[in-house]
Amino acid sequence: MKKQIRKVLFGRPLRTAELKKEKLGILWGLPMLSSDAISSVAYAGQEMLLVLIPAVGVVAYGKMALLSWCIIGLLAILVISYRQTIDAYPGGGGAFTVAKENLGPVPGMVAGAALTVGYILTVAVSISAGVEQIVSAFEFLIPYKVPLAVFLVVLLMVGNLRGIRESAKLFGVPAYAFILGMLIMIGTGAVKAASGYQAPEPDFGKPVAAVTLLLMLKAFAAGCTALTGVEAVSNSVPNFKKPSTKHAKMVLLLLAVIILVLFAGTSAIANVYHVIPGEQGALLILIAKQIFGTSFMYYYVTATTFIILILAANTAFSGFPVLVAVMSKEEFAPKQLCMRGDRLSFDNGIIALSVIAILLILGFRANVTSLIGLYAIGVFISFTLSQTGMLMRWLRSKDPNRKVKAFINGFGAFITALVSLIIAVAKFTEGAWIVIILIPVMVFLMNKVNMHYYSVRRQLTISQKNLADTEYFDNAYKNKIIVPIENINMTSVRTLRYAKTISDNVMAFNISMDDEGADKIQAEFDALGLDIPLVIKMSPYRKVVEPLLRFIESSEYDRNPGDLITVLISDFMVRKWWHLFLHNNITHYIEKNLLKHKHIVVSIMPYQLHDDSEYEEEYRASRKRKQK
Amino acid sequence: MKKQIRKVLFGRPLRTAELKKEKLGILWGLPMLSSDAISSVAYAGQEMLLVLIPAVGVVAYGKMALLSWCIIGLLAILVISYRQTIDAYPGGGGAFTVAKENLGPVPGMVAGAALTVGYILTVAVSISAGVEQIVSAFEFLIPYKVPLAVFLVVLLMVGNLRGIRESAKLFGVPAYAFILGMLIMIGTGAVKAASGYQAPEPDFGKPVAAVTLLLMLKAFAAGCTALTGVEAVSNSVPNFKKPSTKHAKMVLLLLAVIILVLFAGTSAIANVYHVIPGEQGALLILIAKQIFGTSFMYYYVTATTFIILILAANTAFSGFPVLVAVMSKEEFAPKQLCMRGDRLSFDNGIIALSVIAILLILGFRANVTSLIGLYAIGVFISFTLSQTGMLMRWLRSKDPNRKVKAFINGFGAFITALVSLIIAVAKFTEGAWIVIILIPVMVFLMNKVNMHYYSVRRQLTISQKNLADTEYFDNAYKNKIIVPIENINMTSVRTLRYAKTISDNVMAFNISMDDEGADKIQAEFDALGLDIPLVIKMSPYRKVVEPLLRFIESSEYDRNPGDLITVLISDFMVRKWWHLFLHNNITHYIEKNLLKHKHIVVSIMPYQLHDDSEYEEEYRASRKRKQK
Repeated sequence: MKKQIRKVLFGRPLRTAELKKEKLGILWGLPMLSSDAISSVAYAGQEMLLVLIPAVGVVAYGKMALLSWCIIGLLAILVISYRQTIDAYPGGGGAFTVAKENLGPVPGMVAGAALTVGYILTVAVSISAGVEQIVSAFEFLIPYKVPLAVFLVVLLMVGNLRGIRESAKLFGVPAYAFILGMLIMIGTGAVKAASGYQAPEPDFGKPVAAVTLLLMLKAFAAGCTALTGVEAVSNSVPNFKKPSTKHAKMVLLLLAVIILVLFAGTSAIANVYHVIPGEQGALLILIAKQIFGTSFMYYYVTATTFIILILAANTAFSGFPVLVAVMSKEEFAPKQLCMRGDRLSFDNGIIALSVIAILLILGFRANVTSLIGLYAIGVFISFTLSQTGMLMRWLRSKDPNRKVKAFINGFGAFITALVSLIIAVAKFTEGAWIVIILIPVMVFLMNKVNMHYYSVRRQLTISQKNLADTEYFDNAYKNKIIVPIENINMTSVRTLRYAKTISDNVMAFNISMDDEGADKIQAEFDALGLDIPLVIKMSPYRKVVEPLLRFIESSEYDRNPGDLITVLISDFMVRKWWHLFLHNNITHYIEKNLLKHKHIVVSIMPYQLHDDSEYEEEYRASRKRKQK
Repeated sequence: MKKQIRKVLFGRPLRTAELKKEKLGILWGLPMLSSDAISSVAYAGQEMLLVLIPAVGVVAYGKMALLSWCIIGLLAILVISYRQTIDAYPGGGGAFTVAKENLGPVPGMVAGAALTVGYILTVAVSISAGVEQIVSAFEFLIPYKVPLAVFLVVLLMVGNLRGIRESAKLFGVPAYAFILGMLIMIGTGAVKAASGYQAPEPDFGKPVAAVTLLLMLKAFAAGCTALTGVEAVSNSVPNFKKPSTKHAKMVLLLLAVIILVLFAGTSAIANVYHVIPGEQGALLILIAKQIFGTSFMYYYVTATTFIILILAANTAFSGFPVLVAVMSKEEFAPKQLCMRGDRLSFDNGIIALSVIAILLILGFRANVTSLIGLYAIGVFISFTLSQTGMLMRWLRSKDPNRKVKAFINGFGAFITALVSLIIAVAKFTEGAWIVIILIPVMVFLMNKVNMHYYSVRRQLTISQKNLADTEYFDNAYKNKIIVPIENINMTSVRTLRYAKTISDNVMAFNISMDDEGADKIQAEFDALGLDIPLVIKMSPYRKVVEPLLRFIESSEYDRNPGDLITVLISDFMVRKWWHLFLHNNITHYIEKNLLKHKHIVVSIMPYQLHDDSEYEEEYRASRKRKQK
């Protein structure tokens, strides 16, 4: 039953050998890995306006257009820089790998932490923005924003647990549909404007402030969210079909061209069709209404914008698990994160991402403007570290073009560092402080994790020192067994019999509440006629484990230091799950507590209960007898 | 740390021998066991008025007084009947024991189920009513009704987990304070009325209905909730100091006298001071306001009424765990319910009661009027069965006064059966139907539980048949061990060495993903130079348990039917709890799945990891080396 549900939700399990089939080409790789950057058209511009309009009114639109060009310039720098990274690192891993290899483990961990935060926020922001588009068009959905957002994350999680390629196909077509829709909207808008259309001017009130530098920087910082997601391509190089670097570079270039057209286009259009975006009126949807009315194209733009934002969240679902798997392989994160699931996806990474994103959505009530304050900072820190790492690489390399390459990445490093600083200052009080505190904490933990794995590896290595530390059971060694028994019944008979086959030093052990109980047990035990001693201890506090341990440590039990004691416990195996509620289930508790002691091995012997129905007739008869 | 928290919350653990100290005298037994019945003054009358007033207006008060006398008559019958029960059953158990012994197991189970439901509702109703008193006096608390009620249940749970006597002292004094307050209120009210005080007449609107029989029956059914809790005394006879039957009978009598005075008194007073109770205006609080204004006595009545209702809930906390423990001893309920905790209370019963009551409070939004529909029916069914059982007992006995005794209990049985029917009909659509469906379901489950325990007992009995069914390991038997290994490291060395000491038939077993991995493992294993064969199986689906089981079942493994195979697994014991997240933790999963197979014993060998700090220096050195 459980297996069938798994199969319907996640598909049939895949063999490890099927791994290579799950690779991306350009056609499917583009929507899969670049939708984050493309979709930001839907919120980056809007969030810039939300900073500017309340302060300076109608002037905002012109300023937004100006800032948009700055951001596109920044995009160009990033694309050129990252194409060099893809060439240099065909194994993927992006900022984390680049920073770690060229700058050292600590910068690597900082980059890893920053990227991790960035990916999680990509999911939270994109899903929240997606829901915002929908409620802008369908106002009756406004009260359901948060549950809708949570539902969408869960949907993405299930989709991604099914495996990479299938989700790429599932989400690929609508991404192209979005691009087409945006091109039509920009084109129609331009034609309409050129033919003399004058948008009705909304009431902006009086501007309350002048255009200050801080205001522009705040708007710029909000707009920089447009560039998050560019690193997804370079992280995911090994996900591409061979030659994977060539495919990845092509996808990165195509991505830049598309963003250029869409971002510049919508910026220009917004400058003509003055609309005031808000939490329940998303910029693109309002513009589409101005241009198309509530016609088919209006709903088409709403639907495709919504879907591209979901796709953007999906970018993180393909990037994040690969990133944490790489970090996990390098022993900076729990190793469970680099284990592939039934469908060959990194299940634990996918689930972790979903859970944290859902918590963020719940915490920030799926509000894009609140979440955006935390967003770009992490991503730009990782950009900076990645570019700085590349710069160091070229400085040390013997590549004939190393000077040009170093200049390109060096310039990229300088610009992204500057932007990181701008975002940190401009958005500090709006959430960036959380990330600025979180990253060092994460680095501290990664360090601890790394050291733990080192320490474990050292302890597990077969070395002379370790071998000397471990017990060696020579011929003089006596294998000793203790069998705790609660009552004298078939399980005790069975365990004692088995114990005798693995050792000639067996002892039965019982905890009694009082002398009366002790005498009864002793008599019953003697009647079994086994050649095994029985030790009975009193436990006034009704404890089990402590008296047993006390006995083993006591001089009463003849134990040499270095001896291993095997404690043999019988455990009921019930036929129906609800029968578990009818038994003590303390076996696991006893096991856990005994195993804390180095010299105790715990052996569990199952006792399979027959089905109750076998005894039904006998039971009815006995009940009738009693009633008479 | 965990131990310290436990100690502060629940007190120091008690020895089993300290059990007898935790007994009740009359002084503390009265508030402890009778507050349910006494406190019902706070809601029984009110709920009668809430049925009558909307239908017939001011006439309601007179009708309530009339019905109150009927209920007091009913109380007298119950008290006389139950005094006979206490004498006959000094061991406690009340309706369940009486019905089971005299009518058979099925009526016993019905009584047990009915009482169980009754106790749970006592908690839900009393706590909700208590909160209602408080919000009537302090209106700003109205929005917090539900969380307040839940908090109070948790408080009672913790108090009761500390043990019986302490809670009796904690809650005893305020119970007497309530009785005193009510007497002052009734007295002052009577004097004020006698000196010619005329209450301002509220506007009742026009009566919308005539006084019909059904209306009176509905009001009567609501009022019968006053009598729930009477059985708590007879269930808890063994909780009293010796002579326990004498003490219990005295408490029951005192209880009846107190109820008589308070119930009749408030009924008469309400007839003079016409007030209209509602969800945010509790009857007693409104009357107190009329009589005392918002003086000290008003707050005194509010506070003590609130506390007596909490005490009432506490009645269930002392009665319910004893009842389910008795049922558990008779094997009608999970045996965990008759195990005493650290403080000698029946912890599992207390926790179960709290959880279900909290769910009810959440489900019915702590609304007394909604909960009351479910309440009295269960209790009256148990009364009926208990009285019928007593009747049968006398009919069969040789007691010289058996005819008188039979008449008393027979009359009690007749009247309570009649009342049960009235409640079932009058309250059917208001919630009684839930209980009427629930009781048979519970009886069905109890039957299943009883049969399971029977079947287990039969299987565990040491009998010729059972002995013949169990493996007997004679001299020809070979003890076989399989050691699954993931890598060749210190844990594998240690487990293999140990395995050789308990058997000369040891085999190592490895799961590889591919041939490359298999060759590597084989080479490393051979290098160890152990005299043990290694079997390597491929698992393309990255499974562990299935290939091992398949191997054991296969002809490749030479296993005779009846052989026991011991699978020996090494398990990391980490030093810090969070290290658990850094390891696979699949040992328990493997263990659970292997144990489903009758012929497999699972042995866990702990591997104690050293503290990471032991390797810190070495780690730092190695990191420095790498960076260079």
